[in-house]
Amino acid sequence: MPGPLAGVVGAVKSALKGGDKTEPSAAEERRVYVFKKGSSAGRKEMKALLGGKGANLCEMAHLGLNVPPGFTITTKVCQAFYEAGGKLPAGVWEDVLAAVKEVEEAYGAKFADPADPLLFSVRSGAAVSMPGMMDTVLNLGLNDEVVEGLAKKRGERFAFDCYRRLLDMFGDVVLGIEHEKFEEHIHAVKEENGLKLDVELTGPHLREVVRRFKGVYEKEGKSLPHDPYEQMRLAVSAVFGSWNTTRAVKYREINRIRGLLGTAVNVQSMVYGNLNDNSGTGVCFTRNPATGEKKLYGEYLQNAQGEDVVAGIRTPKDVSHMAENFAQAYEDLVYNTTLLEKHMRDMQDCEFTVQDGVLFMLQTRNGKRTGPAALQVAVDMESEGMVSKSEAVLMVEPRHLDQLLHPMFEGTGKAEYKSAVLGKGLPASPGAAVGRIVFTADEAEKWHAEGEKVILLRVETSPEDVGGMHAAEGILTARGGMTSHAAVVARGWGKPCVCGLDVLEVDYTAKTATLKGSVLREGDWLSLNGSTGEVLQGKQPVKAPELSGKLAVFMEWVDSFRKIGVYTNADTPADAAIARKNGAQGIGLVRTEHMFFATAERIAAVRRMIAAEELMEESTGAAAEALAALKEFQREDFEGIFTAMDGLPVTIRLLDPPLHEFLPHEGTAELDALCDTLAKEMSGRSGQHMSAAKAILEAAVNVSKKGVKPFPHIMVPLVGFEEELSHQIKVIRKAAEDVFKAAGSSVEYKVGTMIEVPRGALRAGDLANHAEFFSFGTNDLTQMTCGFSRDDAEAKFLPLYVREGILPADPFEELDTSGVGELIKIAVQRGRETRPGLHLGICGEHGGDPKSIEFVSTLVDYVSCSPLRVPIARLAAAQAAIKAGMKDGGFSKSQD
Amino acid sequence: MPGPLAGVVGAVKSALKGGDKTEPSAAEERRVYVFKKGSSAGRKEMKALLGGKGANLCEMAHLGLNVPPGFTITTKVCQAFYEAGGKLPAGVWEDVLAAVKEVEEAYGAKFADPADPLLFSVRSGAAVSMPGMMDTVLNLGLNDEVVEGLAKKRGERFAFDCYRRLLDMFGDVVLGIEHEKFEEHIHAVKEENGLKLDVELTGPHLREVVRRFKGVYEKEGKSLPHDPYEQMRLAVSAVFGSWNTTRAVKYREINRIRGLLGTAVNVQSMVYGNLNDNSGTGVCFTRNPATGEKKLYGEYLQNAQGEDVVAGIRTPKDVSHMAENFAQAYEDLVYNTTLLEKHMRDMQDCEFTVQDGVLFMLQTRNGKRTGPAALQVAVDMESEGMVSKSEAVLMVEPRHLDQLLHPMFEGTGKAEYKSAVLGKGLPASPGAAVGRIVFTADEAEKWHAEGEKVILLRVETSPEDVGGMHAAEGILTARGGMTSHAAVVARGWGKPCVCGLDVLEVDYTAKTATLKGSVLREGDWLSLNGSTGEVLQGKQPVKAPELSGKLAVFMEWVDSFRKIGVYTNADTPADAAIARKNGAQGIGLVRTEHMFFATAERIAAVRRMIAAEELMEESTGAAAEALAALKEFQREDFEGIFTAMDGLPVTIRLLDPPLHEFLPHEGTAELDALCDTLAKEMSGRSGQHMSAAKAILEAAVNVSKKGVKPFPHIMVPLVGFEEELSHQIKVIRKAAEDVFKAAGSSVEYKVGTMIEVPRGALRAGDLANHAEFFSFGTNDLTQMTCGFSRDDAEAKFLPLYVREGILPADPFEELDTSGVGELIKIAVQRGRETRPGLHLGICGEHGGDPKSIEFVSTLVDYVSCSPLRVPIARLAAAQAAIKAGMKDGGFSKSQD
Repeated sequence: MPGPLAGVVGAVKSALKGGDKTEPSAAEERRVYVFKKGSSAGRKEMKALLGGKGANLCEMAHLGLNVPPGFTITTKVCQAFYEAGGKLPAGVWEDVLAAVKEVEEAYGAKFADPADPLLFSVRSGAAVSMPGMMDTVLNLGLNDEVVEGLAKKRGERFAFDCYRRLLDMFGDVVLGIEHEKFEEHIHAVKEENGLKLDVELTGPHLREVVRRFKGVYEKEGKSLPHDPYEQMRLAVSAVFGSWNTTRAVKYREINRIRGLLGTAVNVQSMVYGNLNDNSGTGVCFTRNPATGEKKLYGEYLQNAQGEDVVAGIRTPKDVSHMAENFAQAYEDLVYNTTLLEKHMRDMQDCEFTVQDGVLFMLQTRNGKRTGPAALQVAVDMESEGMVSKSEAVLMVEPRHLDQLLHPMFEGTGKAEYKSAVLGKGLPASPGAAVGRIVFTADEAEKWHAEGEKVILLRVETSPEDVGGMHAAEGILTARGGMTSHAAVVARGWGKPCVCGLDVLEVDYTAKTATLKGSVLREGDWLSLNGSTGEVLQGKQPVKAPELSGKLAVFMEWVDSFRKIGVYTNADTPADAAIARKNGAQGIGLVRTEHMFFATAERIAAVRRMIAAEELMEESTGAAAEALAALKEFQREDFEGIFTAMDGLPVTIRLLDPPLHEFLPHEGTAELDALCDTLAKEMSGRSGQHMSAAKAILEAAVNVSKKGVKPFPHIMVPLVGFEEELSHQIKVIRKAAEDVFKAAGSSVEYKVGTMIEVPRGALRAGDLANHAEFFSFGTNDLTQMTCGFSRDDAEAKFLPLYVREGILPADPFEELDTSGVGELIKIAVQRGRETRPGLHLGICGEHGGDPKSIEFVSTLVDYVSCSPLRVPIARLAAAQAAIKAGMKDGGFSKSQD
Repeated sequence: MPGPLAGVVGAVKSALKGGDKTEPSAAEERRVYVFKKGSSAGRKEMKALLGGKGANLCEMAHLGLNVPPGFTITTKVCQAFYEAGGKLPAGVWEDVLAAVKEVEEAYGAKFADPADPLLFSVRSGAAVSMPGMMDTVLNLGLNDEVVEGLAKKRGERFAFDCYRRLLDMFGDVVLGIEHEKFEEHIHAVKEENGLKLDVELTGPHLREVVRRFKGVYEKEGKSLPHDPYEQMRLAVSAVFGSWNTTRAVKYREINRIRGLLGTAVNVQSMVYGNLNDNSGTGVCFTRNPATGEKKLYGEYLQNAQGEDVVAGIRTPKDVSHMAENFAQAYEDLVYNTTLLEKHMRDMQDCEFTVQDGVLFMLQTRNGKRTGPAALQVAVDMESEGMVSKSEAVLMVEPRHLDQLLHPMFEGTGKAEYKSAVLGKGLPASPGAAVGRIVFTADEAEKWHAEGEKVILLRVETSPEDVGGMHAAEGILTARGGMTSHAAVVARGWGKPCVCGLDVLEVDYTAKTATLKGSVLREGDWLSLNGSTGEVLQGKQPVKAPELSGKLAVFMEWVDSFRKIGVYTNADTPADAAIARKNGAQGIGLVRTEHMFFATAERIAAVRRMIAAEELMEESTGAAAEALAALKEFQREDFEGIFTAMDGLPVTIRLLDPPLHEFLPHEGTAELDALCDTLAKEMSGRSGQHMSAAKAILEAAVNVSKKGVKPFPHIMVPLVGFEEELSHQIKVIRKAAEDVFKAAGSSVEYKVGTMIEVPRGALRAGDLANHAEFFSFGTNDLTQMTCGFSRDDAEAKFLPLYVREGILPADPFEELDTSGVGELIKIAVQRGRETRPGLHLGICGEHGGDPKSIEFVSTLVDYVSCSPLRVPIARLAAAQAAIKAGMKDGGFSKSQD
């Protein structure tokens, strides 16, 4: 057994002075890494190889923290395990045996020695945290003989409690016997003995539970191997096998976790939170993961093993009470967590066990947090001098900002709500959620697929529920604390969650829940305030968020690092104004065709025009009148947009009739049909472009007379051929000449093209002879380059392709950098060769996707995205610049 | 006036010794090139600048032939004319005046000198011949004063005949007065005087005609300028203006004539075939343009101007009778034409005039010819030592071969026809045509658009009829000879034509024609034998042509030069056999989906399979049975194809269910629907590929046991991503393993992919890690690269784009070399970088298009096309190799 914490501090400090250890070279790379207090060959930087849990266990050991000794089997072994068809590769087992020896020495006891048994836990641990997604076996090494030895040393109750847990987990994880089959026997024994809680079970009770559990094995025709090493071999294999269970695969899919080799396996000596009342187990965050408040935040359970906390079955105590039960352990915990946060330079999420008053650190990792918390932590850590401004900017993920920009409920307290507050649970994940109640994950997925917004209401959630949780607007549970499965998963996704509303009584069969007398039925509307824990009847109105306070400060930092512009896609003056408030520096895309369908009045004008057949002669008849009315509407819109974007560029895409059917289906079938007719009826592309260009430039001249500075950038779409573009540009320049002459006044304007046809990208050098700017329409460019229609692909095979690793991601969400990106590179290079000052941007949906922004950030001058994503794009652009600068050594990596 | 032919020969010989003059440098380039017997700065190689007619006039003058002196205004002036908005550019007129002076000196008379007037013709002449498409004015320089002088010198009849022609042509071409308005007065004068023929008109008659023609001018408010130079200025401008008339534009469109600057204008001193009966005019070919026979072939008219011959109004005499009328002139003609053919190294098409017994050469050019003639001339000229084998191969155009491969009527004479022979006209353009009678060009176009096959029946054709002529299967005219408009145009297109069937009486109003008592009505079926001149009632059966005799010899030459392979696209054993007969060296594309729909029995099996829902488990139930039946059908087909292609590679494209909607719509809606259901119902792409691969390889093993050598190349379609391909290739290799194991025998096979998605081309380096061959599916690749669907584009805007010069050609007919071709280049380079031995081919429709073949001939190993186009592809590939070799100096350019 390792000694107490005393004397550790010096060792930690000296470790901190030493250089960071990075990925090992192939020569020194091992298959198994041992960790024990004060020593390990592993380091926190080796997460790809050791998984997050393993790498940090090694790091803590290296720092001298009190870590139960153990070892990590690498992710490369996992990969080799699958390549070998699900078998441990040759040589690994010998390494494991050697590691066990080393651990035995450090621990001061022998594996499964009946006299003083050392037991092991076996846990998964990938490079990216997947809470509850993979499998764990505790108390490995017990058998009928060893358990009696343990009983002799630690008492019958403790020994048989451990044994029944091993039987349950080993049965479930390794042998595939359902957990429920064990659960029912424990209930039976409690009932027969008139007991309510597990802790009331005595040694003899648990001995009886073990007997019945063995009956379950027998009934299933299975058995727990008597040989502890055989137990270990099977458990290690099972954990490797858990990497590819349906739920693990689904979790990775939802969370876009890709490119990992597999999971590592952590085999660690057991310490016992369930040894006695001077023992316990807990989890804590170094800061509040919901708000970012700088205060140790966590929960613990006395006389319990770790799984009891995470599963949310018993309601734990707040970590602030821990000193009352374990004074020294609490002091050590505060010291350790402070040290770890400073060393890791980020908020930590730790697991610990107290055994007979002594604190053991079981795990540490960067804590998942909500958007508000991420922002608070980043700003605080910068002002504490713990991180530099650039590091602070990197600490807030784009999805965090997304949460901050999500709508919130109107009003801030009960008095101001429009709906009745039915109850208050734990504020497990902040934000406002409004939806209709469903009681199962399956229903949640089904209703969601039908377009319904749902609230998933459960007694508690389990890893099998992730699909439904993801489909829901928000999650409400009756049981479980702030670190329960539901809370952890919801926070990870930024999805509102209220937990532990224990007055809620759920009847799954009747599909109803009762909350202080109110009956909630399937399909009823419910609103959740994840920031306060309040549950509200019906649909509570929501409001848009604002960029103010510390968020405004943070965005200033962001903009100080950002090297490319962020524009917005907006079709109306209102959208333009929102985008500008969000920091848009211009409009990258106004879709003129949307203007025709903005109001009933306009649609009527379009119909009038179509009805009038003499349109081919534009200057006469009803069609010309209708066209004039439309032009008038357009000009009004343009005036509004120019005014909203005073002093900033506004890029306007002209309607492209002949090729419209290759445009993404952005609107209704009616829009399609009208566009089509419009295309046929209007006097060809040139006539339409002439008309639209005039509307744009007249609007620009008009507002400029009122003191507004308009910068129209007129964009010709769907161009594949140089002559096509030069022809259209001539038409536009002629329109400009006419307008300026008639107005006796002119404005600055640019003419360019959208690059959205592969040929346009390939011939960019030709197009740049005429275009003053390019805007990459990456939606269409992706369709044509990859050869699939978006609607069809996303419905039919893209999810399958992504799951099978054929595609790294849905190329409509995340830019296909090696295919479409290659074309963009070609176009940028060829375009700039012809015209060095060519202005370049991205206006597809990828303009709002952080990974896509990172890719294009060295290629283009700006990205353009929807008004609400502008702040996210600003952050992504800043992070891309910081990362690029780090590679170049341009930004300081730390201030330590 | 120039002297007679005597003494010319020496000059010609010395000119032939001199080096060829090529394009002038910019410094020495002129706007106007004078030509006169024995001297010119122009040469035959300067066609782009001088037009074909002008360049050859200069060449003939330079050779010392008796050419009426004149000058050529260049095509660059035409371009400048349009750039100046339809005005002669500055300085040109001064050059013209200087040239007129030079011509006056050479001719020995003054322009429009009443005492001895020199008159001029003004004619168009582009770099590519456009027969009858552009305008001509003759006898320029006459006015009321000059005509009297001319009458004094040459007689009243002659002078006023010239004058009435000038008034008619100048009115029509320059002033826009319809020709018919003059025509009716000439008819009236003949009628009033009881005359039938123009030649019967006397001097006074023609004086009256001129009076009435001037009345027409007056009525139109127009007049012939009195100043001869003003006449010339207006005529030159009108000829430049004729370059862009509707009919000229349409002719260029149909004949794919592109990239010309404009037309040159040839101003030439008049010589008079209508001077007296010792004068005449004619056209002749140095060999028979229909058969290739080596014998002077042509026609002439006594006492007539050239336009009378070409217009086909009077039926001319055969050139073999010319010696009877003009002995010396005929001797000179034979000498000149023989010399010209040898000098030009190709069959010549000459125009000449005899004036008072003296021969003048008015024009020479390489003669248009039919496919059979092209072949005969090439083979003959090679054996005469006039051209090398490589030059002979270049003399036969792919479209000539196309004609040779067109169907002919079954039977070779009246006795063997199944239909009645109604009459026999001139065999103006060979081949068999069967269609329904229409009487106007407009109807021909209309019926053709509705899918009808039509025969255009006209008294004679005019340039306005070219659209309808092109739409017709064949052309039948009552008037006009072998060199009439109808004959020349039809031969150019290889379209069967029977001319001068003078017993045919046409009633346009009633839409009937009478032929020796038979009444032919609109819509009646008619068959034309353009090789014999026979006109047959109803639908005469046709037969396929064969590659034999001199064609077989010629194809041997072709193959000796060819550097890439020619494969075929074939889905059945029968098609494979035809292709092999035509010289296919393998199959580049078998489309497996076509096999499912070849017979009713198979379609039934497909339906059974779809009906059976348990297909997901492939091994059980009715679906599996139906699938097995289909596999059986497929295997039979594959066995047949392997046997037909014994020893040659057979490339089989697997069905691609998930992405089928991007396949070209090759079949019926039912095929689409079934493919779709098939795709959904079959157990995914892998299951289908496994099944198809097994059918292919089982078939290969089966035939190999019978001594056949199969080389299956299995091709995965629509691949954009490396993993997609590697996954499918694993499936195929697994299928092969299974089949070979079960059969106890194996065959060689390759696995590759179709490059048809732009991303596939860009990532070719990755794909080549797995693919042993690439085949470019240029149809789909064009759709996706250019961003338009073929059906839609060809229906809606491609013709417009081509006409406006936005696209050089329909990219689905002729490979878009700078866009799609660029992607092919990228793919070839990246693919071969990864795998140097990568086997490369083209299997889109471009594989049969000569220009596309020329482009890819340095990039790929083979092209693949439809069975009937194989010989054409062989020729195109050989010509590409010869042209490339000429650039490298690898082939001898001549044997002279």
